[in-house]
Amino acid sequence: MIALFDSGIGGLTVLKPVLKRLPQYDYLYLGDSARSPYGSRSEETICRFAEEAVEYLFSRGAKLIIFACNTASSVALRHVQQKYLKGAKEKDRKILGVLIPVAEEAVKHTKSGRVGVVGTKATISSQAYDTEIHKLNPEIKVYSAACPLLVPFIEEGWHTRLEAISILRKYLKPLKSCNIDTLILGCTHYPMMQKQFERYVGGKVKVFGTGEVVAEKLASYLERHPEIEKKLSRAPRAPAKDAPAKESQGKRLFLTTDDPARFKAFAEKYLGMKMKTPEKINLN
Amino acid sequence: MIALFDSGIGGLTVLKPVLKRLPQYDYLYLGDSARSPYGSRSEETICRFAEEAVEYLFSRGAKLIIFACNTASSVALRHVQQKYLKGAKEKDRKILGVLIPVAEEAVKHTKSGRVGVVGTKATISSQAYDTEIHKLNPEIKVYSAACPLLVPFIEEGWHTRLEAISILRKYLKPLKSCNIDTLILGCTHYPMMQKQFERYVGGKVKVFGTGEVVAEKLASYLERHPEIEKKLSRAPRAPAKDAPAKESQGKRLFLTTDDPARFKAFAEKYLGMKMKTPEKINLN
Repeated sequence: MIALFDSGIGGLTVLKPVLKRLPQYDYLYLGDSARSPYGSRSEETICRFAEEAVEYLFSRGAKLIIFACNTASSVALRHVQQKYLKGAKEKDRKILGVLIPVAEEAVKHTKSGRVGVVGTKATISSQAYDTEIHKLNPEIKVYSAACPLLVPFIEEGWHTRLEAISILRKYLKPLKSCNIDTLILGCTHYPMMQKQFERYVGGKVKVFGTGEVVAEKLASYLERHPEIEKKLSRAPRAPAKDAPAKESQGKRLFLTTDDPARFKAFAEKYLGMKMKTPEKINLN
Repeated sequence: MIALFDSGIGGLTVLKPVLKRLPQYDYLYLGDSARSPYGSRSEETICRFAEEAVEYLFSRGAKLIIFACNTASSVALRHVQQKYLKGAKEKDRKILGVLIPVAEEAVKHTKSGRVGVVGTKATISSQAYDTEIHKLNPEIKVYSAACPLLVPFIEEGWHTRLEAISILRKYLKPLKSCNIDTLILGCTHYPMMQKQFERYVGGKVKVFGTGEVVAEKLASYLERHPEIEKKLSRAPRAPAKDAPAKESQGKRLFLTTDDPARFKAFAEKYLGMKMKTPEKINLN
């Protein structure tokens, strides 16, 4: 199955477009809500949490793990890839992050060669977006800003209040004079404030988050890697004679390290779907 | 030695007055910064984290553990006391919280019989302060308000900004019309915003946090329990002939589950003292 891992609920902004684009596969979503947010923690701690999640998800049969979390992708992805994907027996396992697809999209879009990135402290200080963008085009200028208080506001449901907008403006002010034409929302929570970001940077700046880009790139990745695609569990194909126009839907399983009821209430509302009570697990 | 446990840095507002009042003992401070804040987590998760901390601190030789964290005191104290202090061999071990001393102080102070309590979501929804106050005087009316965004503002150092004040006002507004004369800052972070709280509720309302009250009650507890006091490690007493007016100072050891450098920077500034780099530990 395909597993998505996030520090909490933010990764649902990735899961939603992925489910829409590729509904036929079985999905496992793991939110480490007991230890969220990751964005203000040290690199060492984020790597340890990511290792625990990867080991757990492999033990549950995941073949493809997506870090649906910019902080974990920025800080821990390379580390876990090196640790868990080196042996011959891990050949059929993959761990992907969200940064490369988003960096590719930004490079494709920018005309001015000036790209903005907002994210958690850990994401911004890792300079992982800068690195990925410069691999594609070293001429592009990257301007970044950490926005640590936005996640608490979003988790609290207070992100459309004046105080949240005022704080967003303070964070973005240094980017305002940089003539960017592209702004990467480098935290999976931020699409929940997409409108507020767009309003502040103005209509000429393209603002995009992680979700849709990752969904599209995942579809193309699976087309290019049939050896991975074949191993993914999925909804049984309908017999040819009754074949519906659209493929049927795979299973969805949700895991959380904290209160399942709280997770369920948020996830059902955000995803617009009913789900069984998520499974409560411990990662350590 | 005496151990203080907190989800992160908030407990330093308890440690500071305790060190001032009782400098002679050896102290061990543990901040679980890798998993802070606790205040928005479920009861089950907070109890699990508290268990891990208690087991660890006992393994390090702590005889007396103080939960310098209102959330852990409200939600997990009774649970860990029942789990770890029942057997005969644990007779010389104690685990204390911060709620009872603070509730006693509030009951002693109030004239109107109307007391306000602010704290994290977990503290407020546990109604632990209501319970302790009503044990002392069931006639007292307790009005409470959860203030979940204040901890992120304080940790960010943004708590004196207009947005923080505006949010504090929104949280306190329902208490404003309750004619309280006493306000308990039921979160160890909040004394860092004491002035902002005082300004909003006005000079007639006594606002007090956990630190000083706990320091005073701890001193009196140790006087009343010489069997505990005798077992605490402490600075060697100076020989009688050179005896200084003041007792010498015991050892201070700091432990954190996340970045020791970040913890040290904050703690040295807040406590106004130099310290060795804190020890990094894992609680699980």
